[in-house]
Formats: sequence, C-alpha cells, structure tokens
Amino acid sequence: MLPSAGGDIEYGYAEVDFPWASMSNTGNALEDALTFVMGESSHVKGMLKLRMVDLNFPEDMMRSLPGPRHGVPGVRKRLGVYHRPLLMGPMRPEVGLAPAEYARITYEALVAGADIVKDDELLVDPPYCPIKERAPLCAKAAREAEQKTGERKMWVLHLGCDVSRFDEFFKIGESAGVDGYMIQPRLTPSLLTFVRGRTELPIIAHYSMLTLFTRYSHVGIELPLMLKMFRLSGADIVTFPRPNSRFDVTTEEFVANLKASGDPLGSILPAFPFPTGGNRAEDAGQCYSVLGNFDYGFVAGSAMFEEKGGIGVGAKNLRDALEKLAATEQVKTRSTDHANDNGSPKPSASMTVEELYATVAPLAELVLQIPKFDHTVSMVSTPEWDSLRHIQLLGSIERKFDIKISADDSFRLCSADKLIHYVHARLQEKARTTYA
Amino acid sequence: MLPSAGGDIEYGYAEVDFPWASMSNTGNALEDALTFVMGESSHVKGMLKLRMVDLNFPEDMMRSLPGPRHGVPGVRKRLGVYHRPLLMGPMRPEVGLAPAEYARITYEALVAGADIVKDDELLVDPPYCPIKERAPLCAKAAREAEQKTGERKMWVLHLGCDVSRFDEFFKIGESAGVDGYMIQPRLTPSLLTFVRGRTELPIIAHYSMLTLFTRYSHVGIELPLMLKMFRLSGADIVTFPRPNSRFDVTTEEFVANLKASGDPLGSILPAFPFPTGGNRAEDAGQCYSVLGNFDYGFVAGSAMFEEKGGIGVGAKNLRDALEKLAATEQVKTRSTDHANDNGSPKPSASMTVEELYATVAPLAELVLQIPKFDHTVSMVSTPEWDSLRHIQLLGSIERKFDIKISADDSFRLCSADKLIHYVHARLQEKARTTYA
Repeated sequence: MLPSAGGDIEYGYAEVDFPWASMSNTGNALEDALTFVMGESSHVKGMLKLRMVDLNFPEDMMRSLPGPRHGVPGVRKRLGVYHRPLLMGPMRPEVGLAPAEYARITYEALVAGADIVKDDELLVDPPYCPIKERAPLCAKAAREAEQKTGERKMWVLHLGCDVSRFDEFFKIGESAGVDGYMIQPRLTPSLLTFVRGRTELPIIAHYSMLTLFTRYSHVGIELPLMLKMFRLSGADIVTFPRPNSRFDVTTEEFVANLKASGDPLGSILPAFPFPTGGNRAEDAGQCYSVLGNFDYGFVAGSAMFEEKGGIGVGAKNLRDALEKLAATEQVKTRSTDHANDNGSPKPSASMTVEELYATVAPLAELVLQIPKFDHTVSMVSTPEWDSLRHIQLLGSIERKFDIKISADDSFRLCSADKLIHYVHARLQEKARTTYA
Repeated sequence: MLPSAGGDIEYGYAEVDFPWASMSNTGNALEDALTFVMGESSHVKGMLKLRMVDLNFPEDMMRSLPGPRHGVPGVRKRLGVYHRPLLMGPMRPEVGLAPAEYARITYEALVAGADIVKDDELLVDPPYCPIKERAPLCAKAAREAEQKTGERKMWVLHLGCDVSRFDEFFKIGESAGVDGYMIQPRLTPSLLTFVRGRTELPIIAHYSMLTLFTRYSHVGIELPLMLKMFRLSGADIVTFPRPNSRFDVTTEEFVANLKASGDPLGSILPAFPFPTGGNRAEDAGQCYSVLGNFDYGFVAGSAMFEEKGGIGVGAKNLRDALEKLAATEQVKTRSTDHANDNGSPKPSASMTVEELYATVAPLAELVLQIPKFDHTVSMVSTPEWDSLRHIQLLGSIERKFDIKISADDSFRLCSADKLIHYVHARLQEKARTTYA
C-alpha cells in the first residue's frame, strides 16, 4: 500500500480491489477489468506516475476466460516436436516480394529445418502481395515441405489488425489451408478471443505497439501483464522483444516475459514464448538457461534468411544448434540423474568452498563465455558477465543444486566469491532442513 | 527535421515518409500505417523520447478511408436540432442500477431536455443490468420521451470492447431499436470501421485508456491524432477529457482535440466533439468561444443527474443554458452584421488604442469573468485569466476583428496592454494590406 504519511510520496505500491459483480461475466471480462482499472486513471490529477504491474482474478472469473485452445501441448502435437525448442522463421525480406518468390523462400526455409514460417508484422495485404494469392501458395509450400522432409510444418498468415477485414481473411485462410494466424491485439486482448471463436487454428499474438505504453518506468502497463492477458484471451504463442543491440529491453523484463507465458494459471494452458530480435545460432540456449526447459520458440530472421551460404545453410545451422542443445542438455540431465541414483558423486551439502568452485567453474565458464571462473572474477571486472548472463548463470546453479535464488539475493551475488559462498551456505542450510 | 550537428540533441521534429504501396489499399489502411510508423519504434535503442504528433495521408489513401457515416450533419438531422450544441447525459449513477430504474432515469433526463442519454463506459453487460434487458427498456424510454416532448431523442448503448461479443450485442441492439452505439477503440481504430460495417446507427468513440500513452510529453501519440484516426475510421462522435478540477488536460490539448474533430479533411465528414468531465451550466459557452460555432456536444453528468432539485431541474437548467447561448450569440452576430451593413460603427482600423480598450473591455470582462478590464490587468495579477480563458478570449477577438492570432503570438499576449497594442497593430497592418 502507499505510505500514508511522511512528506512527499515519491512512489509506492497499491493493491486495489474491484468488484467482479460490476463486470460482464461471460465473454472476455478482461476488457471490463481494463476499463475499470486503467480507463480513466491515467489522466486524473496527481496520478502522474501510475503503472499497472499485475492483475489477478477471482477463480470464477478465471474459469470464464478462454485461454489458449492449443498452447504448448497443442502446438507441439500439431508439429510432432517434443524434444527441443521450436524454430520459427519470420519472413525476410519482410516486404517487397511477389507471392511466388515469397512462397519459394518459405518452402526453402521449412525444408532446411524451420518448423514454422510466418509473415512479418509489416506485411498484411498490399497490392503487390495480396493475401488471396500469398496464402494458398505458402500453405502449398508448407505441404510440399512436409512431403520432402517427412516432418510436419506450419505456415502462419498475418492478419494485421484491421478487424473490419478479418472475416474476409478467415475465409481465404481456411480455404487455402493455412496453419495459423498472427494478429496484433495492441490494447484489446479480446481480439484474440474473437479470432479464437472463428478458427480452430493456433494464434500468434504479436507485440506490435505495446512498448508505446510499457517501456517507460512508473507509467503505463507492464509488458508481462499484457502477455498474461493475451494468453488468458486465447493466444497460443506470444512474441516479445529480446535484449539485443537494437532493442532496449532489460534482462529483468525479458525474464518476466518468458515466465509470464508459462507460469501456472489455474486451468489455463501455457502459451509458447517466442522472443524475437537478432537471434543467432549461439543464442539457442539462452531461454533454456532461464526456463530450464525447451518450451519456447527460437525466432531467427536474418540468421535464417540472410545467411551467406543461403537460406538452406541458415535454417540448417539454427536447427542443428537446437538439436544439439536438446541432445546435450538431455544427456546431461540423464547422467546427473543416473549419478544421483548411484550416489557416486560427493553429496553437494558436504562440499567445501574449494570443491564448489571446482564444480561451478565449468558451468560458469560456459554460461559467461570466459576462460576462467575463479575468486578474482566479479561482474565489475568481467564485461562478459552482464545482467542477462547473470540470470542465466543463477538459473543453471538453481537447477544443478536444486535450490531457489530469490530476486533480492540475485542482485547481491555479483562476484564469484559472493556467489560460491552463498551457494555453500544455502546447501548447508538445505541439508539441515532436509535431515532435521 | 532533427538538427544534425551541435552537441547532444535534446529534441527535434522529424517528418518521415512511408510508402503507401506497402500497405493494404482496401479496408482501414490506418492500421498498417500505425504498425509501420510506431509498431517497433518505441523500443528501439536511442528512441527514448519519441512522440507521434501527426499522420497525413496521400489523397487516394484518404479516399479509401470510410469516415463517419453521419457526422455532424447526420446526427443533427436525426435529432432535428440545428441551432445549438447537443446536450448529452452520461448516465449517473454509472453502475449499480437495475434495468427498470435505469430506464426510468433515462426517460426523466430526456423529457427534461437532454437530446442523448448514453451508458457510462464502466457499464457493459453485468449480471444485474444485462444488455438484453437494459437495451429494450431504454430504447422504449427514448420513444416515450419523444411522444411526451415532440422532440427526437437518442439512447446510445455502450458495447465496451469485448469484440468477441459485438455481434451478439448488435442483434439485441437492432431488435431493441437503440439509437446508437458507443465503443472503446483504444489503439485499434478499425474497431470503428468494423462497427460501421455492421450498423447504420451513429457511433460514439470513447477515449478510455488513451491517456495511458497520450499524457506524457515526448513519448506516445498525440490525443488529437487518435481522435482524427477515430473520425477517419468511422466515429460520428468523439469524446475526450476537458480540463477541470479532476482531469489533467492542458488547454492547448483541449483546443487541439476540439478542432481535430471538425477540421477540413478531404471529403471526410466532421465528427462531433463531446468533451467530458464536470461540465456545469455556466460552462455551456466554453467550446463556442474556441470553435465559434455550436457543433459540439455538451456532456454533463452530475449537473444533469445529481442536481439538488432532481433530474428534471438538472437537465432543464442545462438545456436552458444552451438555448440561451444560441439565442444570445445568434442575436449578437446578427446585430453586428446589420451594423456593418450600415457602416455606422467606426471602422476598426481607424480606432485608437483607447477606443480599442472600450470595445474589447466588455468582451474580455465577460470571458474572463472579471469586473474591469483595463491597462492594469495581466495574467500574472489576475487568477481568473487562466490559459483556457486566454484561448477563449483570443478566439473572441479573432472573430470580432476577423484576424488570426498565431499560437506563437498567443503566448506573448499576457497582459491587457500587450493584447490591445497587438490588436491595434494587426488592424493597421490589415488595413494597409486590404487597401494597398
């Protein structure tokens, strides 16, 4: 709650209850909730810094929300891919191609290893590449790629957000046999519910224009909350920008976005997080190191379509990187399990600080991409150890030692020594709790 | 354009061209334009202060946009009211009433003088007052009020923005015989085009949630631009907050919003501006003093529904204020015209500064609501002379002397002396130009 006394209030955190009895209890009640909470608040005097960080709903309201029709399990089932992240190519060049050439490139990327190819959000229905020509050709390209590879593939049509034409586009899409739709819900999550009610196909929610009101601290709405609302409203896949040389996204926000898609949410299925922006083959494991699983999409535009060796090489490199990640991490997990079964490695609780260093160093060197992880290393002295890799490192350590590191703690663990001593103490504590 | 040299750039103004050939050329092309211009820009590094202030379109693109079906002339025709601003009551209490009581209050306000009664934006379809019960009762109340008064009336149903239920709501609305729909387009102007394609009735665009991204200078989108896009997309009436004790709205923005609705825009009809928030009877002429005409809506919630004497008194007071405004201003205009015809008053160009004072003082005293307007009066020394009344005063002077005062000049005219000398100089200059 806001502090109630003591000089000028700089900022505070308030929880406000709204009566669900005043809102619609069928359809997508999130829209009413948005109007109640933020419809007027942002121009009321004195509310100069107002940010909506989360919305939670009573159980019966949650039951009225549709959620994804397919979600992670459904999309995996359609593709028959269960063992690795999905590989999606957002078409390049984004605009300018005629339908035949566009479909040819789609085919090439799918054959070389992509699971999904989709339109860029800049392409909807321009005269030089209209949906009525593009959709049948690209759906056909996907079927031919399936024939060629023996794998299932998806081609996703972008509908943009001219709602007045959606019904026209659905007709073309269904008759062409496209495999999904992408839309831009912007500030209207129920657009997803609308689409979900008109098609059985998976739906991608693109984040276009959201950062207009999510980027600036202390005003607007948190992006993870928008993604949560998209998921509740019917999105099977949500996209959001990842931190890279072009996009201004904090690591904390990236991690929160990743988690918003799959966090437990009553009976609502998890949506697939598809972070976008400048992914290269070497980034294949970035999301894994945060999530600890493969339930994410790896979206690579220029690395797939603009590789020097051609699209075949680009898509294959990316697919290989994902297959390798899955194989390595699976093997690692299995051998660890196996080792634990036999009890052969030293129990972690009895490790000395030096032994912990020996165990953590290879992991840290891999994640931070530095030659040596020892007591001289700290975030300040090591440019490679940035905030994103920090989160990845802590994630790896959490999984390796089966401990949870709180966000508060994570900010203090900014050197090798602090980190190792912290882990040491936590393992001792854990042993006491477990065997007490 | 952005200054290209000379230290850190604090801010600048850039005009960017986008090829319409890359956008859809049927339906509502504004959606593609929004994605092109602002879809990604607001999270790109270095773009920390980026605000979209206007969008202009090539002539053939303008021709593809629907605009209002009715606009100012159509809504006036439906109501048969041509001589004054329209009076609209946004229902009070906003929420909590059962349908029968809700319809009774609607009837009372319409009979006592309101032209239009509409739902508040907080009310959509809650279980205690569902649309399927509220719509037929309120439409009936409007017909009965027409019988009683001999005037035409409108009752407008709020659809909220759960698009997945709009078709269901249209069916109820059409069969109940409602007189219009209100929606919240938020960041998706084509929702208006969607509604326009499904009904012949007038459409109100409510500004809910827009200030999330319009309120903060140097980021987001200008509110007048959003209203312009709503008008281009099919809104007959646009609402926006007016400056008052509760809302944080600058006078400049208020004036720009008022004008955005009716400014010439190719063959697109003007939309009706309906500023909302705390209007009382004494504010009836505020918009007139800016616009110089009666093409606006006077929206009064508590002054209509929460007046001590009851709704009958509240609505009648407001209606009387509008009728009086129309009668007075019409008479004033007529007598001035008449006087000019005879050439009896002294031509303004030959007036001395003292004579100008004598002419302007009664006008200024009325607009500023001060006892005496003389050379001792300035904005600093006169609290009543706030920025809103300043704009109103300049508007009155522009019309009285048929001159245009630029925005740049308006900021400098902050005392009676500066203002009168400025007008004196402008009139001399005008006479030279006219008779040269």
